[in-house]
Amino acid sequence: MGRTSTARERLIDATGELMQSRGYSNLGVAEICAKAEVKKGSFYHFFESKQALTVEAVNAYWNAERSCWTTELAATGPALDRLKRLLDTMAQLQRRMKETSGTVDGCFLGNLALELATQEPAVQTRLEEIFDEQIALVAATLNDAADEGTVPRERATAATARAVVAHLEGLVMFAKLKNDPTVLNDLWPHTLLLLGAAG
Amino acid sequence: MGRTSTARERLIDATGELMQSRGYSNLGVAEICAKAEVKKGSFYHFFESKQALTVEAVNAYWNAERSCWTTELAATGPALDRLKRLLDTMAQLQRRMKETSGTVDGCFLGNLALELATQEPAVQTRLEEIFDEQIALVAATLNDAADEGTVPRERATAATARAVVAHLEGLVMFAKLKNDPTVLNDLWPHTLLLLGAAG
Repeated sequence: MGRTSTARERLIDATGELMQSRGYSNLGVAEICAKAEVKKGSFYHFFESKQALTVEAVNAYWNAERSCWTTELAATGPALDRLKRLLDTMAQLQRRMKETSGTVDGCFLGNLALELATQEPAVQTRLEEIFDEQIALVAATLNDAADEGTVPRERATAATARAVVAHLEGLVMFAKLKNDPTVLNDLWPHTLLLLGAAG
Repeated sequence: MGRTSTARERLIDATGELMQSRGYSNLGVAEICAKAEVKKGSFYHFFESKQALTVEAVNAYWNAERSCWTTELAATGPALDRLKRLLDTMAQLQRRMKETSGTVDGCFLGNLALELATQEPAVQTRLEEIFDEQIALVAATLNDAADEGTVPRERATAATARAVVAHLEGLVMFAKLKNDPTVLNDLWPHTLLLLGAAG
């Protein structure tokens, strides 16, 4: 069974890696199998469809990223500092991609959200849940900030948290389109404005 | 020649219509030709590639949308009212899509930006130019608002205009993902916060 689960993991890893830069429709099962060094014939032993595999790749991506979100947001220190560290880490991810591969590939989750939406409902549903979780994590931090008096109480809402994540996703889109992570240098000052917390 | 130019137009229209909901990679030339009622054999008489056709579909989309942007932003009245009308119109577009087709298809330009990026450089370059034009149009309006004293002068910048368009694209992403245009109800109050103009 050890070998079986390794092949499954390799398929998930290969999908995450290839799909981040190539998208969903442009990537075939044969290519995923080749990268994962898994025989194409055994693919359907592990996953019933490319869509099912993609949901697992999305889960793997978010499991890794979520630990970064919760670590940064649950650290000690003022709430706004924690939020800033999270957004700095998100910007840093894009910078590192550019340094290592030459390309700003953007956010795997946002890329899939705009490529697919209603076409692949299982992927769409999982993406929706993940973005809701991101928004809830930010909203909880805004609530802490309101308790600390650094954000007006009326800004500590799910709607404002959604605006913060939307603005992040939009700027990551421009960083990807321009293949230039410096677009994200403005992320924090404009987030402070959204929070009504700018000095 | 009349008939020739009609077939070309039909190919561009069919691409815009199909690609908005289906994306780029998931759409083949054969399907575009069928929708446009153009023989597949004559496709390459009009366009050298699907990429070249897509650039023309993007141009057609933006030509129509730009006239909406310039009409709203160049109207008479206070600058912030004009910006609000533009953003209301963008939200209205998504609402109308949902009413007519049942699906919030999002922004054709944003969808392509996140699906493709570096894979199809001619499309990417054109998208980059269009978003730069959008940002410049918003920046000019913010400058008018600063002249009128409704937006602080330090917010009348290209960086703030980019944040406004990024926030719009991010919220449209969530509206598409949730297939729910009411996500865009918060667009204006959060835009005012980005501008440091909230009451």
